[in-house]
Amino acid sequence: MVKIDLNCDMGESFGAYKMGNDAEVLKFVTSANIACGYHAGDPTVMRRTVELALENGTGIGAHPGFPDLGGFGRRNMTVTEEEAYDLTLYQIGALYGFVKAQGGRLQHVKPHGALYNAAAKDAKLAGAIAKAVYDLDPKMILFGLSGGELIQAGRNIGLQTASEVFADRTYQPDGSLTPRTQSNALIEDDETAVSQVVRMVKDGLVRDVNGEDVSIEADTVCIHGDGAHALAFAEKINSRLKEESILIKSFK
Amino acid sequence: MVKIDLNCDMGESFGAYKMGNDAEVLKFVTSANIACGYHAGDPTVMRRTVELALENGTGIGAHPGFPDLGGFGRRNMTVTEEEAYDLTLYQIGALYGFVKAQGGRLQHVKPHGALYNAAAKDAKLAGAIAKAVYDLDPKMILFGLSGGELIQAGRNIGLQTASEVFADRTYQPDGSLTPRTQSNALIEDDETAVSQVVRMVKDGLVRDVNGEDVSIEADTVCIHGDGAHALAFAEKINSRLKEESILIKSFK
Amino acid sequence: MVKIDLNCDMGESFGAYKMGNDAEVLKFVTSANIACGYHAGDPTVMRRTVELALENGTGIGAHPGFPDLGGFGRRNMTVTEEEAYDLTLYQIGALYGFVKAQGGRLQHVKPHGALYNAAAKDAKLAGAIAKAVYDLDPKMILFGLSGGELIQAGRNIGLQTASEVFADRTYQPDGSLTPRTQSNALIEDDETAVSQVVRMVKDGLVRDVNGEDVSIEADTVCIHGDGAHALAFAEKINSRLKEESILIKSFK
Amino acid sequence: MVKIDLNCDMGESFGAYKMGNDAEVLKFVTSANIACGYHAGDPTVMRRTVELALENGTGIGAHPGFPDLGGFGRRNMTVTEEEAYDLTLYQIGALYGFVKAQGGRLQHVKPHGALYNAAAKDAKLAGAIAKAVYDLDPKMILFGLSGGELIQAGRNIGLQTASEVFADRTYQPDGSLTPRTQSNALIEDDETAVSQVVRMVKDGLVRDVNGEDVSIEADTVCIHGDGAHALAFAEKINSRLKEESILIKSFK
Repeated sequence: MVKIDLNCDMGESFGAYKMGNDAEVLKFVTSANIACGYHAGDPTVMRRTVELALENGTGIGAHPGFPDLGGFGRRNMTVTEEEAYDLTLYQIGALYGFVKAQGGRLQHVKPHGALYNAAAKDAKLAGAIAKAVYDLDPKMILFGLSGGELIQAGRNIGLQTASEVFADRTYQPDGSLTPRTQSNALIEDDETAVSQVVRMVKDGLVRDVNGEDVSIEADTVCIHGDGAHALAFAEKINSRLKEESILIKSFK
Repeated sequence: MVKIDLNCDMGESFGAYKMGNDAEVLKFVTSANIACGYHAGDPTVMRRTVELALENGTGIGAHPGFPDLGGFGRRNMTVTEEEAYDLTLYQIGALYGFVKAQGGRLQHVKPHGALYNAAAKDAKLAGAIAKAVYDLDPKMILFGLSGGELIQAGRNIGLQTASEVFADRTYQPDGSLTPRTQSNALIEDDETAVSQVVRMVKDGLVRDVNGEDVSIEADTVCIHGDGAHALAFAEKINSRLKEESILIKSFK
Repeated sequence: MVKIDLNCDMGESFGAYKMGNDAEVLKFVTSANIACGYHAGDPTVMRRTVELALENGTGIGAHPGFPDLGGFGRRNMTVTEEEAYDLTLYQIGALYGFVKAQGGRLQHVKPHGALYNAAAKDAKLAGAIAKAVYDLDPKMILFGLSGGELIQAGRNIGLQTASEVFADRTYQPDGSLTPRTQSNALIEDDETAVSQVVRMVKDGLVRDVNGEDVSIEADTVCIHGDGAHALAFAEKINSRLKEESILIKSFK
Repeated sequence: MVKIDLNCDMGESFGAYKMGNDAEVLKFVTSANIACGYHAGDPTVMRRTVELALENGTGIGAHPGFPDLGGFGRRNMTVTEEEAYDLTLYQIGALYGFVKAQGGRLQHVKPHGALYNAAAKDAKLAGAIAKAVYDLDPKMILFGLSGGELIQAGRNIGLQTASEVFADRTYQPDGSLTPRTQSNALIEDDETAVSQVVRMVKDGLVRDVNGEDVSIEADTVCIHGDGAHALAFAEKINSRLKEESILIKSFK
C-alpha cells in the first residue's frame, strides 16, 4: 500500500506569545517538528508540545533554526560548518532531553526556515547538519527538501532520510521549488494542491511550471499549522489521501 | 582511603568573549561543570569543552543557570517550579547531546550562580531541579551546597548527590555559608583555606565564624577557574590533599 | 473640570509574534506605554506603534522592563541600582529615537511588570529609575503606582508624576493593591470597576477590602489592551467617564 | 594643515565579559565607535564608555550591528531595508540617550562588522541606514568604507560623511579592500601600514595589490583596540602622523 507522512511545524509559541493551534493540527499529521528555542519555542513550550505529540502518537522531530528569535529563523545567517554542526546539536540535544524524560524517542530532525533553505542548496552546510544528527543518534531520520543537498548529505553519512514535498508550492523543471519571489510560486487553489500531492505520492511525478512532468520523491508532505484555513486544508488532504487509499503514517 | 572530588565551572566563554583558562584548570580538577548557554557558554564552546574534559578524563557535568547572559546568571529571577524544571531540562539536555555525540557520559548536574543559591534554600525549586535531572537520567549525580535543600531534594527523589564545600568561604553555626555581604565571608589566606578543606574532608568538621566546630559533609570542593591566583590555588590544594593521603577523584 | 488620563500598554508584538490590538485600543486611551524591546517589542514594532500613536494624537510613553523576553518582564530580577538606571536609560533612549525621528515628543515613562512592582516598593530602585528619566529629559512625566515609591522618587528629583490607579483591582487599607495571590484581588464586575474609577477620580477615594474609604490620588487609569473584553471595557469606561463630565485627556 | 581622524571600536564588553582596553586606546584616537547592545556592549558598558569618551574629549559615535551577540555581529543576516532602518535607529537612539543624559553630543554613526560590509556594497541597505541616522539627527556624521555605498547614501540624503580607510588592509584596483579570504588581504608590517596611511591622507593615493596608484578619500582611519600590539600600533601611527605634520582631530 502506498504511504505518506504528513508533517507540521509545532511548538512555536514563546513565553507570553502564542502561535499555532498544535492540539488541533496534531489530529491531522503524523510527524511534528518541534521548535527548539532558537527561532521559536521555549523550554516550557517544548515540554508541553512533546507531551501533546506523545498523547497523539505523533512522530516527534526536532526543528532547529538559526539563533534569530526576532526574525523567526527566516533570515539567512552566514554560519560556518562548525557553527552549523554545533547549533544543530545543541537544539536537537535540548529536545532530545524532553523526549527522553517523557519516555519517548526522537524520530526525526527537520531544519527550520532559512536554515532549511540553505541546507537544501549548500552541500557543506548540509553535511554539517547531517553529521550533528548522526552523531546524536544515527537512528534518527533526516527531513529535507526532496532533491536537495540535505537529503544527499543524510544519505552520504548513513542516515535514513525523508524527502519532503509541498502541496501549495509550484515546481521548476529541475524539481526545485519556484522561489517565493516569483508570482507563480504558490498554489492558491486547494483542489490543485491536494491533487499535486496525490500525484507526487502515487506516481512520483509533479507537473512543473511549464506543464511538463518531473520525477520527485515524496516521503513526507509539509502541512501548515497557523490560521483557520490551515486546519481546513489539513482535514481536506487527510480525507482525500484516504479516498485514494494512501496510508498516512509516520516512520515509526 | 579518604577521597574527595574537585570541581570547577568551565566552558564560560561566549562567542568572541573569552573567559577562564579551562585547559590549565582541567589538570587540577576531577569534575567539570560546563555552562549550557543560558548564563554563559555557546554551542561551540560547549562542544570544545566536552572534548577537552574527555581528553583529560574529567567527570562532565551540566551547569544550568538562569536565562540571563547579561547578568552571568548571578541575578536571582523568580521562576515557577515548572519553569525551573523546564529550563534545567533544556540546558542539561543540550549538554547531554554534546556528550553523547562524543561517546561520553554526563556524570553530574550543578546549578549555577543565583539558581544554585536559590535551590539551596527553596525546597520547591530544589525539587523541580532534582526532578529534571532524575527524569533525564536517574544515574546522574546532583551537586549542591552541603546541607542545603538541593541535596535533600536529590535524596528524596533517589539521585546520588554530592555535597559541595568551599575552601575560601567561612561557615555559620548552622553549617551555611556566611553571606558575601558580610565582611568575614571570604577566607583570603590560602593556607587557612586549604586547611579548612583538609579538615572538612578528613574529619567532617569545619570551624565556624564563632570558632566552634560544626559537622559538614564534603563530597566535592569548588575550585575557581579564573585568574592567575585561581590556578596557583588549584595547584596548592592538589598537592596538599595528596600530602594528606586524600585521594582526589571524580565519581565515575 | 475634573480630568483623567487613560493609559494602555502597547507595542508588545515581537517579530512574527502578534499581541494586542493597538489600533483599536488607541481610540479609547490618551497615553500609550510602548514596549522597548527588553520584555516585549522590537525596533519595527516600536516604530510602527509610535506612528500609530502620533496619528491618534496619543501621549507617547516608554515602557521599559527587565531584560526577560521569555518571561514577558513579569519575573522579578535582582538588579543593582546602577543596572536599573542603565537598563531604563537604554530602553527609553531607544524609544526616544523613534519618537524624535518622527517629529514627536516622548511624554512619559512607565516601567513594566515586575520592574513596575519592584519600583513601587523599593525606594532605591525607584530613585535609579527616576534619575534615568530625569537625566534623559526632565520634562517627561513619570508614571507609577499611586502612593508608591516611584511616585515619591519622581517628586524628589523634580519630575512631574502621574499616579496610576486600577479599575479592576481591589485596594488595601493602606492604599496598596491587594496582591494577586489573594482571592479578592480582582474586580470581575465591570460596573463595579467603572464605579471605582469614577469615585477615585472625582472624590479621591477608594473603598478598601474592608469597606472603608481610603484616600487615593488618581492621575491616570490603567486600561488593558488584550482580548475582546478589554476593548469592550475600554469603551465602557470611556462613555461612563464622559457621562460623569470627566475630561479624558493626556498630559500634553 | 592636512588633518585626519583616528577612530576605534569601543564599549564591546558585555556583562561579566571584558573586551578591549578602552581607557588606554582613548589616548590615541579622536573618535570612539561605541557598541549599542546588539552585537556587543550592554547598558552599563555603554554609559561608562560614554563617560570615558567625554572625559577624553573624544568624538562619540554609535556603532550599531546585527542582532547577533553570539556571532559578535560578524555574520551577515539578510534583513529588509525596513529592518535595517529600524535596528539602526533603535541602537543609535539608545546610545543617544546615554550621551544626552551626560550632556554630550552624538557625533557620528559607524555600522559594525557584517552590517558595515553589507552597507558598503548594497545601496538599498545603505540608504536605509543613512535615513535612520538622518532622521534621528541630520547633524551627525556617517562613517563608511571609502568609496562604498554607505558614503554615497549619506551624501544623497544630505549627511556629512567620513570616508574610512584602513592601515592594515591592502586595496584592489577599484579602491575596494582585498577580501580577507585572500592571502594578501592583510598588511602585517607596521611600517608599511603606517606609510600607507600617511600617503592616503597626504596624497589621496594608495598603492593597490598590483602596484598601481589608486585615488582614495581618507577622512578617518580605523584603529584596532584589542591586544597589546593594537596599542603599540596606535601609538606608532600617532607619532608618525605628528611627524608628518598631519593634524589628528575629530570632526567637532
